Formats: sequence, structure tokens, C-alpha cells
Amino acid sequence: PKIVTLPGDGIGPEVTAAAVAVLREVAPDVTIEEHAIGGGAYEAHGEPFPAATRDALKDADAVLLGTVGGAHDSPWNKLPRPLRPESGLLSLRKALGCYANLRPVRVQPGLEHLSPLKPELARGVDILIVRELLGGIYFDGDRKIEGDTAYNTMRYTTPEVERVADMAFWAAEQRKGRVTSVDKANVLEVSELWRRDVQALRDRKYRGVHLNHEYVDSVAMLIVSDPGRYDVIVTENLFGDILSDLAAVIPGSLGLMPSASLGDGPGLFEPIHGSAPDIAGKGIANPAAAIMSVGMLLRHGLSRSDAANAVDRAVALALRAHPTRDLGGTADTQTFTRAVLDAME
Amino acid sequence: PKIVTLPGDGIGPEVTAAAVAVLREVAPDVTIEEHAIGGGAYEAHGEPFPAATRDALKDADAVLLGTVGGAHDSPWNKLPRPLRPESGLLSLRKALGCYANLRPVRVQPGLEHLSPLKPELARGVDILIVRELLGGIYFDGDRKIEGDTAYNTMRYTTPEVERVADMAFWAAEQRKGRVTSVDKANVLEVSELWRRDVQALRDRKYRGVHLNHEYVDSVAMLIVSDPGRYDVIVTENLFGDILSDLAAVIPGSLGLMPSASLGDGPGLFEPIHGSAPDIAGKGIANPAAAIMSVGMLLRHGLSRSDAANAVDRAVALALRAHPTRDLGGTADTQTFTRAVLDAME
Ligand SMILES: CC(C)[C@H](C(=O)O)[C@@H](O)C(=O)O
Ligand SMILES: CC(C)[C@H](C(=O)O)[C@@H](O)C(=O)O
Repeated sequence: PKIVTLPGDGIGPEVTAAAVAVLREVAPDVTIEEHAIGGGAYEAHGEPFPAATRDALKDADAVLLGTVGGAHDSPWNKLPRPLRPESGLLSLRKALGCYANLRPVRVQPGLEHLSPLKPELARGVDILIVRELLGGIYFDGDRKIEGDTAYNTMRYTTPEVERVADMAFWAAEQRKGRVTSVDKANVLEVSELWRRDVQALRDRKYRGVHLNHEYVDSVAMLIVSDPGRYDVIVTENLFGDILSDLAAVIPGSLGLMPSASLGDGPGLFEPIHGSAPDIAGKGIANPAAAIMSVGMLLRHGLSRSDAANAVDRAVALALRAHPTRDLGGTADTQTFTRAVLDAME
Repeated sequence: PKIVTLPGDGIGPEVTAAAVAVLREVAPDVTIEEHAIGGGAYEAHGEPFPAATRDALKDADAVLLGTVGGAHDSPWNKLPRPLRPESGLLSLRKALGCYANLRPVRVQPGLEHLSPLKPELARGVDILIVRELLGGIYFDGDRKIEGDTAYNTMRYTTPEVERVADMAFWAAEQRKGRVTSVDKANVLEVSELWRRDVQALRDRKYRGVHLNHEYVDSVAMLIVSDPGRYDVIVTENLFGDILSDLAAVIPGSLGLMPSASLGDGPGLFEPIHGSAPDIAGKGIANPAAAIMSVGMLLRHGLSRSDAANAVDRAVALALRAHPTRDLGGTADTQTFTRAVLDAME
């Protein structure tokens, strides 16, 4: 199988190198092809999602992404919108047809103390957030800024709602069988469509799954005050952006959060943390999320669940034995990666 | 001065009665006129915001609202959108011209243990969220659901951005002088306008205020993992809906959260909690937030800050001496209200 890696900006190259080392160890038969994306790609090729990168995706079996974007005050943020690092990321998602972003939020046993929540609330949290990733207000072409007015359009169609809801129901069947669909149907027509179509799909195809509907403002509260109530959460792109980042703080470190974006073509696997330019190049970044993304790549991208489990187990062991600085330990990137490799043997 | 009260649905009438008792005590000169809103108004008058209510607002100096809406499975939620309780609320906001919703999020000293956050994170939190309340995707007329597609439009104009930002800067000047403006300018044109106009107003008129800009997904994380970093947060309607509810969980009980909506006409003051139909009519609802809303009404609606301070102090004392059930105590609505009245003497 062919894996395309896109290390990207900031700490992306370091954590991707760690992830690739692990990938080579558990799947020695893969071929790996590295390409440019983001701010670095703009510097080198004049665009954040260059043609060579796009072409390389065509026969890829999965894509492993590092991180994209510069510091808060980076000159990249002043470029015309289509040239900014984020646009490279959005184009990549679109090119891959990844309409469902899966984010597992799991508090590792023994690491409850890292959570900003009280330990009794954090303990045992195990949520899967499924975010629609190619529709809604992110991509709709009806958008404008002109003079002193600006607008964007949040649009969905039934097929767009159904395909991501289908993914959520399918995932729920492998888990506790409960889906919470999140919308703002008391205010928005687009949410009314969302709610109707999610319910219809459940009634037609997933009678064994328990479905309920909650408002986005209410979920923002409950995910903090009672996270244990959720199994699978499915929602549209913008709400998903906010809620998945919110939920990501529960385990206590973004350094522990992988993600998978799935759809029509090869899947996209990436840590959810940012490019952390302040610590880039120092060799101290926590590569756990990038390595856990390899776990998701093995499971969802290559259907190798034994290898995926081996990676997950090794990461859990390494986290206990050699925690990185963001977790209150002292391990640097290399030490942690070594510990994962050792634990796999 | 004339105060219009709109007790509304569920526990609204009970907590409003408590609030009115306190208002009469500290401001015996006010006249109070009660009117219908929400589901009850629909039952009685066929619409959630009846003409008589609208007329009564004309010469009001301030409006004290209870709570609006039925249970999750209430038949009210199946009515055509304009007849639902929420529409009454949205029409009320519009009629009053309340473009800025102010939500103080303060952890009361000694009550840190109620927070879902670790006490060391909750301690000393004191944030003011200023939410734009009359624009954006809530009210824009360009919206539709038809067949298998639906959309809503998030639109802002410079004057809409400026008036709410002005309120936020003004509030910051009375506080720690720091404003965080929240948007999604890396993706949305409407956020680009928002960011540009908030910054321009700061540079033109509020040089003494420190302004920074953050993305909504990042704020959703940071408000939980590091709430102490915020002073005033200003944002558009939908982001504000989500973030203000999220922040509201920090003090540990929605029963402690008042709000003020200010604009061109009389201000609107209300507790942020819902109508809690499950406990309505039992006399056990916590009226603290409704009474604290009287505090905000005195301060912002009638410019009587001495009276406002007296109410705030009395509520703080009553909370310690006679906590209600939602706070782990045993006081019912009447006992708590009595305690507030006693503490004011
Ligand atoms: C960088 C940005 C465009 C992106 C998004 O909003 O989708 C990021 O926040 C994410 O969640 O992956
Ligand atoms: C009931 C609903 C329309 C309302 C809103 O979204 O504005 C509520 O959530 C609020 O925040 O007051």
C-alpha cells in the first residue's frame, strides 16, 4: 500500500517523522511518499496545496498529515485567503472527498488528573465525535465581503446529511449504540433539514441505534458538565469544529488526540493539535497524537486492526513510562518514540 | 418607572414572583405591569408574542423576563416556526432593539466546589460575555428549507458590528480593560468583516483597551482549560449562543446566572436557565438568577447602582446561608427569597 505523508508546518515534520518510524515498524510493506502542504508549500511552490501533492493523492491508500499553519502573527495570515495555509488544508479535505471527521475523545485510565474537569467527571469518558467536513458554511460558494457588509451561507442537502449520518450510525453499532445529533433546529432551517434527515435515516436503516437530538448550545454545556452521557455525537461542519475542539480538552492534552477523516477516497489521518511554532525544531513536541493517528490509519485506512491495536497499546505504555513535557514528564520526541517502538516488540 | 414583567412558561412565573418581591422591596416606587409571552401566550392569545405585550413595551423603562418554552417533547415544538415559544423570545429581542446580550460569569468565592472544573481553575473566574443579539444567522431573511436542501445566511454589516463592539469596549473600561473578540476569520468572510471592524473601532475610540482576536474553536477550548485568561469576550450571535452557555457551566449552576440585553430601547433582564418544566409548580426552583437579574435591571435599566449592590450582596449571603437544592442545600423558592429579603434589611 502507498501512504502519502504531508508533514506540513511547525512541529508537523517532527511528529510525522515519529509517526512514520512507528508505521514502518508495524507495516514494513508500505511505501511512503512525502509531499508539501500549508505555509511551507506556499513558500516552496507558491500555493498551499500544490499540484504535485494533489497528483500524489490519486493512487494513495491513505494520507498521514502533520500540522499546518504559522504563528498568530505569521505573514501567511495576511495572504489572500486562497493562499493561506488553512486553504491548503480545506482543499486537501475536498480533494480527498473526506466528508466525515472522526475524533475519539477518550480519557486514558490513570491520566484523569490531566483533565481540567474534576476527576470524577473525566473518568471513563469515551466519546466519538463525527463532524461533517465538506459542507455547510465552510465550502458554500455563496459568500462575500464587500464594503461594509459580508455574509456566508450555511447550506446542506439531504445526501450530504445522510452520508455523514450513516458513518455515525455505523460507528455507533461498533460502540454503545447511541447517537446524539446536534443542531440548532429551534432557530435554523438548515438544522431542521439536518434533524429530519438524520432521524429518517435512523428509522429506515438503523432501528437498533438509539438516536436523540440536542441543541448545540445545550451540548456545549453538557459535554463539560456531564460528558459521560455521550457515546457518538454527529453534527455539521461549524458546530463540529467548535464541539470537537471543546471535547478535546477533556483528556487534558491535545497531544493525545488523533483524528481520521473518511469519505469516498483515501482517508486522512492527523493529530488535532496545531503546529506549535514556538516549540518547533526543538525536538520536544509530543508525537503521541501523530502516532495514534497511525493507529487510526491502520484501522480505518488499511483495515489492519491487529496492527492498530498494537500501536494503541504501545502508546498507552509509553505514556505511563515516559510522559512528555506537556504531560508533566520529561521525555523528548525521540525518547517517547523509542519507548513506543520498544513497547511494540 | 414602569417595569414590564413577562413570567413566561415553566418555572418562569415562580422565579419572577420572587424577583418581583425583591424589586418591590428595593424600589418601592416602580410600577409593575405583567404580560404574556411564550407557550402560555400562544395558548391564551394564539401567538407567542401577543400585540398587548408588544404595546406594553412602548413606555416601559425595563423588562423583566422569566423563562420561555416547554418540555423537550412539548407539542409547542411542533407548531409552525413563528408560533413556537422561541419565536416569541426572538420577536421580543427584536422589538426592544436589544443588540447586546451581557452575561457575567462569576464564580462566587466559597462556591468553587460547584464547578465541573477543578477548583484551582474555577477560582476567581470573572468573565463578561457580550453577545450580538439581533443579527447574524438568527434573523437574516435569506433562509429556506425546500425539498432536500436548506440554508441560512450569516450576515453582518459594519454598523451592527460596531454598536455591539462599542458596548464591549465600554464595559471593559469599567473592568480590567481587556477585550477578546471571537470569530472564525480563517474560514468566513463575515468574520473577516467582524474582525476588521472591531479592530478599527478599538483603534479609533478605545486606545486604552487591550484587544485581541481568537478563533471560536480555540476559545471553546481555552474557556474550559484556562478561563482565568478572559476579561470581556465579544462575539456574534451564534458563536455567542454557544460560548455563553458553555461559560455558564463554570460557576456550577445555571441557577446563578443572570443576563441583561441592552440596546436602543428598554433593557431586557432574565435568568439564563431554562423553563425546567419537570420541577415547575413545585415551589422548589432556585430564584437566585432571576433575583440577580433584578440587580442587573437596577444597575443598567434604572441606573440605581446602590440598590443593585444591595441585591447582589443579599443574594450572596442567602446563597451561603440557605442554598437551594440545585446547590446541594434544602431551601425552597420561598425560603431563599425570604432570606434575600431579610439580608437586605
Ligand atoms: C484550520 C481550520 C480551517 C480548521 C477548521 O476549522 O476546520 C481547524 O480548526 C480544524 O478543526 O481542523
Ligand atoms: C431559545 C433560543 C432561541 C435562544 C437563542 O439561541 O438565542 C436561547 O438559546 C438563548 O441563548 O437565549
